Amino acid sequence: MTSEETPHFHCPLPIDEYTHVLLAHGGGGRLMHRLIEGLFLPMFHNPTLATRHDGALLECGDRKLAFTTDSYVVRPLFFPGGDIGTLAVNGTVNDLAMCGAHPLCLSSGFILEEGFSVASLRRIVQSMSQAAREAGVQLVTGDTKVVDRGKGDGVYINTAGIGVVMADRLIAPASVEPGDAILLSGDIGRHGIAIMAVREGLAFETTIESDCAPLAAPVLALLKARIEVHCLRDLTRGGLASALVEIAEAAQLHIGVRESAIPVREDVRGACEILGFDPLYVANEGRFVAFVAWRDAERALSLLLSHPLCAGAALIGSVGTEPQGLVTMRSSIGAERIVDMLSGEQLPRIC
Amino acid sequence: MTSEETPHFHCPLPIDEYTHVLLAHGGGGRLMHRLIEGLFLPMFHNPTLATRHDGALLECGDRKLAFTTDSYVVRPLFFPGGDIGTLAVNGTVNDLAMCGAHPLCLSSGFILEEGFSVASLRRIVQSMSQAAREAGVQLVTGDTKVVDRGKGDGVYINTAGIGVVMADRLIAPASVEPGDAILLSGDIGRHGIAIMAVREGLAFETTIESDCAPLAAPVLALLKARIEVHCLRDLTRGGLASALVEIAEAAQLHIGVRESAIPVREDVRGACEILGFDPLYVANEGRFVAFVAWRDAERALSLLLSHPLCAGAALIGSVGTEPQGLVTMRSSIGAERIVDMLSGEQLPRIC
Repeated sequence: MTSEETPHFHCPLPIDEYTHVLLAHGGGGRLMHRLIEGLFLPMFHNPTLATRHDGALLECGDRKLAFTTDSYVVRPLFFPGGDIGTLAVNGTVNDLAMCGAHPLCLSSGFILEEGFSVASLRRIVQSMSQAAREAGVQLVTGDTKVVDRGKGDGVYINTAGIGVVMADRLIAPASVEPGDAILLSGDIGRHGIAIMAVREGLAFETTIESDCAPLAAPVLALLKARIEVHCLRDLTRGGLASALVEIAEAAQLHIGVRESAIPVREDVRGACEILGFDPLYVANEGRFVAFVAWRDAERALSLLLSHPLCAGAALIGSVGTEPQGLVTMRSSIGAERIVDMLSGEQLPRIC
Repeated sequence: MTSEETPHFHCPLPIDEYTHVLLAHGGGGRLMHRLIEGLFLPMFHNPTLATRHDGALLECGDRKLAFTTDSYVVRPLFFPGGDIGTLAVNGTVNDLAMCGAHPLCLSSGFILEEGFSVASLRRIVQSMSQAAREAGVQLVTGDTKVVDRGKGDGVYINTAGIGVVMADRLIAPASVEPGDAILLSGDIGRHGIAIMAVREGLAFETTIESDCAPLAAPVLALLKARIEVHCLRDLTRGGLASALVEIAEAAQLHIGVRESAIPVREDVRGACEILGFDPLYVANEGRFVAFVAWRDAERALSLLLSHPLCAGAALIGSVGTEPQGLVTMRSSIGAERIVDMLSGEQLPRIC
């Protein structure tokens, strides 16, 4: 491989080499991982956190629970296909689903900026209420803080969620096995492009809407059908590429994907070309990858295809052993390149 | 009563009458309650939220869980007796304790401002780690977002927590009964004054430190001794007064307290006089009130007094029936006045 083929393949400095936080520390790429690995993991050291999954798994009496949190700082607050409220519910519901859990309830913490419009707040709260209804979860506890004018950005929302784990076996990068099939639940890149279009005032021929949606139903359908699911990951900040790299590194296995198998809508591909983005790195809010035992791959794919939210699902690749810890992608003309995380920042505040 | 005696006894406008969010909407007083009652409760309508307790109670298999969240936006980030990290752990641990729950684990969501000092972040994360160790909880899952320079205030932290309910009966305002004794776990007003002193650059003869501390141990000691605990509430934003008013209103009972029984340190009282604050409304982060069956009052008080964090505990009053839904305070010279929530804002961003 040459450096031209892998423009992002270098290691930024460890967290201690930075004296100040950069936007890229929150971007879902290499720098954010340095922050997590260099500061949060060693300081909060415990076995649950160390699994580095979308959520924590907790034994609680006769149940196994999943517990997860996300803060939402998306800009703009309203975009085609959703708003910060939709995102705050679906994002956390999806993190629970990625643990193989049935989402039970959410908390919501609002940080409001003094002077924020009450009408906008009402609209956002309404979106959260509707998204919760659609996802089958309840918003059961909450908190509101107000910060001075100029010290916030309208509204930030944190949600945390609890789910009941429905999977018999551990769904996590550590469970991925050589030979696993990798399924992608649909076309990629829509959320990031929807946000970017509003932010930059771009108009495309069609309005590209965010794919923001709750993913628990298709995941639970796989588990109910006793598909042997090894790992699940929703594709948010950092896109498909970052999710696959994280899993390959954590599992210390090789992930190989075929570029032609990865669905990207024509309008999204066009927008990416105009903006200079690679759809592999663009954020999604209603897409996931499932690593399943190879013998279950076809059955899993047809189950996904039968679900309205996964109508574009595809088998995009498989897991091997070498080169260990790397993701490679074969292009339609047969060239293979290494896929790495972004080291910097593609699109800040996308969720 | 005259209006001079009850300066805050008027109803501000309902949430719909405000077009923009005010700082006071996050202040823990009347305006925040209007926001909760006028917007969040009706929109997120469900029986769990409707109990309006510090946390939600959830049946989960053979266990009953408590679930709660808080965002922390305190200014300054570091203050005598703690920092935003200590607060973020203890605040949520205490909300779980107030549900009669043994705190199990916390999530943490960081919203960092671009340019925030990594050394300060490290110090805060270290405080969280130490506070978690002292409170016996684990930080098991987390999230980091970065917002643009000027769109945050260094760092905001959200924590959510899960606890296992240890109480046999529901600990909530609805369980308060006429005749209940009201115990206060120690002297009030230290957290608010500690913050204010730093913020305004005031120097008192002694440094007043925040009372920030985890309250699960004394609460669980009461439960273990089978004290009949009816309601618990930690005294944060809005102070002792707001906590008592909330409970009196929710229980539709009368709460009577004696001013002389409420411990306030001399230096705190002096600082309050200088600043024009009423200690009843000043925030605390390591104090709570316990409503217990009268026959258990003495035993509960001596249990609290034996705990280092509650060395200044006192019996401050009792519950009656009339005047329904009101809190009254008898002064040392025998005059009785109504205690109400603040309608506006005493001290923004205190936690």
